[in-house]
Parts: sequence; C-alpha cells; structure tokens
Amino acid sequence: MPQPPPARRRLKPGARRRQILDVATREIAASGFRGASLAEIAENVGVSQPGLLHHFPSKAALLLAVLEQKSAEDTAIVDEVFADAEGTVGQAITALVEVNQRDPERIRLYTVTAAESIDAGHPAHDFYLRRYQGTRARLAERLAKDRERGRLPETLDVAEVATEILALLDGLQFQWLLDPGVDMTGPVRAYFARLYGRT
Amino acid sequence: MPQPPPARRRLKPGARRRQILDVATREIAASGFRGASLAEIAENVGVSQPGLLHHFPSKAALLLAVLEQKSAEDTAIVDEVFADAEGTVGQAITALVEVNQRDPERIRLYTVTAAESIDAGHPAHDFYLRRYQGTRARLAERLAKDRERGRLPETLDVAEVATEILALLDGLQFQWLLDPGVDMTGPVRAYFARLYGRT
Repeated sequence: MPQPPPARRRLKPGARRRQILDVATREIAASGFRGASLAEIAENVGVSQPGLLHHFPSKAALLLAVLEQKSAEDTAIVDEVFADAEGTVGQAITALVEVNQRDPERIRLYTVTAAESIDAGHPAHDFYLRRYQGTRARLAERLAKDRERGRLPETLDVAEVATEILALLDGLQFQWLLDPGVDMTGPVRAYFARLYGRT
Repeated sequence: MPQPPPARRRLKPGARRRQILDVATREIAASGFRGASLAEIAENVGVSQPGLLHHFPSKAALLLAVLEQKSAEDTAIVDEVFADAEGTVGQAITALVEVNQRDPERIRLYTVTAAESIDAGHPAHDFYLRRYQGTRARLAERLAKDRERGRLPETLDVAEVATEILALLDGLQFQWLLDPGVDMTGPVRAYFARLYGRT
C-alpha cells in the first residue's frame, strides 16, 4: 500500500526529531550552516517552519544538535579503531581513514562547518575550538604511550605531532571531497611509515 | 579638511573596481561566499547595488575576481620562496608558512571559500579543482628535483608527498585560524626534518 506523503504522516516526537536531524545533516553538509535554509529543511521533512522550530528553537540550535549527534557517532568510531591496546596510533589512524573514506557525507559536514566556524560569531565556533583542543590533547597522550613503549623516538614532541596529524587528516579530507580522484590512504601510510621509522 | 563620505566620493573606474575587490575580499574572508552580502559590500564601498553590479555582473563574478586577484599575489609569494635554486622544497615551504603566518586574512579567504567549494554547484568549485591539481603537479615536480639531487630518498613517491604537504599546510592553517594559539612553524619544521631524513 502506498505510504501517505511525508507532510501528512504523523510521527512521535522522538522520531520526528531524528528525521529533522537527518535532513538537516544532509542540507548542512551540502551547503554549510550559512547556505542551509530552515524553510527547505522543513519542506524536505514535511513539516511547517513553526513545526520545526518546536523541536529546535533556532537554526543555530539545529546545527549544534547535528554536530553533537555526529560527534557522538565519531567518538564511537574513534574508540573502535583505538580499541586494540597493542596497536600504534599510526595503525589506528590509518584504519580511521579507511572508515572515513566510505562515508563522505559525515566528513563533508565537518569540513564545511569547521571552516565556516573560524568566524568567532559562527554558532559552532566554540564547539570546534573545544573539539580541536580536546582531540589534540587525547592524541598527544596516545602518542606519548607509543613513545614510552619505544615505538616512537624518545625526543618526539607529541603535542606538535598531534597538531600535525590532525592537520594532515583534515587537509586530505578536503582534497578528497573536492576531487574524489585523490587517495587519502597512500599519503597517510607513507606519513606514518616515516614517523615510526620504517621508511 | 574632512573627506566627503564614501558614497559621494567620485573614483575612476579602475580605482573603484580595486576598492570593491578590497571590500569584497574582507567580507568573503569573514563570512564566506554564502555568508557575504552584495548589499553590505556595496554599502561599505559607498555605491548602490546596481553601481556595484556595473563593475561585477554577479556575486559569483565578484568572488572569482577576488580569488583570481589573490591567486596572482600568491603566485608572486610562492615564486619568491622558491627563487633560491639551491634550496629544497622543505626550506621554501617553511619560509612560505612564515610569510602566511603574518597574513591571516589572505589565508582565511582561501580556507573559508575552498571548504564551501566542495559543493559542485559552488561558483569556485572549478577554480579550486584546477588550482589544487596544478599545485600538486608543480609541487611534485619540485620534489622530484630534490630527489634527483639526492636530497630525498630515491623511492619517494613525489605525487603522494605533494598531496600530503598541501594537506598538512591547509590543515595547519585551519587550526591556526580557529585558534591563534596553535603554532604552524613547529609542526612544519618537524615534518620536513623527517621527510629529508634529519630526525
């Protein structure tokens, strides 16, 4: 039997909220926070704009909810690639890049909104500032463990290398999103081979 | 004597065009192409919106003119850091990062508009696609010269490393623009020390 059109379908508040987040994620990943339109998101969900604002009081609140949700999914992925206590940071990050390469939309959401958020007035500015500070610190700790186990040179500045690894990943993701012919895994493997002294 | 307000100042077409480009560069660097408003640019220049459209027929045309102008300035900077035929790519890029670190606005224009341009419908999509393809190819050629001179390992994949270096620079610039406490030169020096085998 044909489904009724989305506008007339009744959903429980939780399901409606998830549906709005899904549609908003796609629109914001495509056009950024600035390019995304609440009217279009509401239309694609099949609710009125006041109906949408009942779930998320503003476009900024919707963006932050999208980023918080993606961030939780990301943490689960990162925890999984780092689950092998015997593996190095290099091995975990290489696995992460392989996972990311299968999910351009999730990566695109970050690339587009993170670049917008450089502007101190952007609603995700503090979100990304804290996120990067936290990620650099956790990555430096993990690198310090590899250094303690003798897998990395004793003199390695782990804070500096944490900044470097994040930069490399972000930059590769950008080039790959712009031009899908760009390979991310080759440069990542070559980078870690040099870092871990296996050139 | 006080200057007349900008709206009433008469400028020759060339000077007005340069003034529009300057104002547009600042607005687009701050808010991206999507966030920048032609009305605001016109107001800050002191012309009407039809007056602005007389010089640049659309917002897209204005963005491309801004990027072409910055690109020409960039080429001059890059040519200068690569002018020393005896220097390595590593030395030239390290010098480039030091220059870039003094000019956040130029870097910000690229970071913000490049990320937006991932969208195939963005007016700068082809500009950035071609720019990155060209930059990777030129960088790979320069790395091949270092390899021929025995400065880099014979087996080094220069195309892969060119992608990697661009990624590192883009990613560092993003972290630094988001959080001026981030240092770009330390990670760049450490990266090239490993690449050129001086760890």
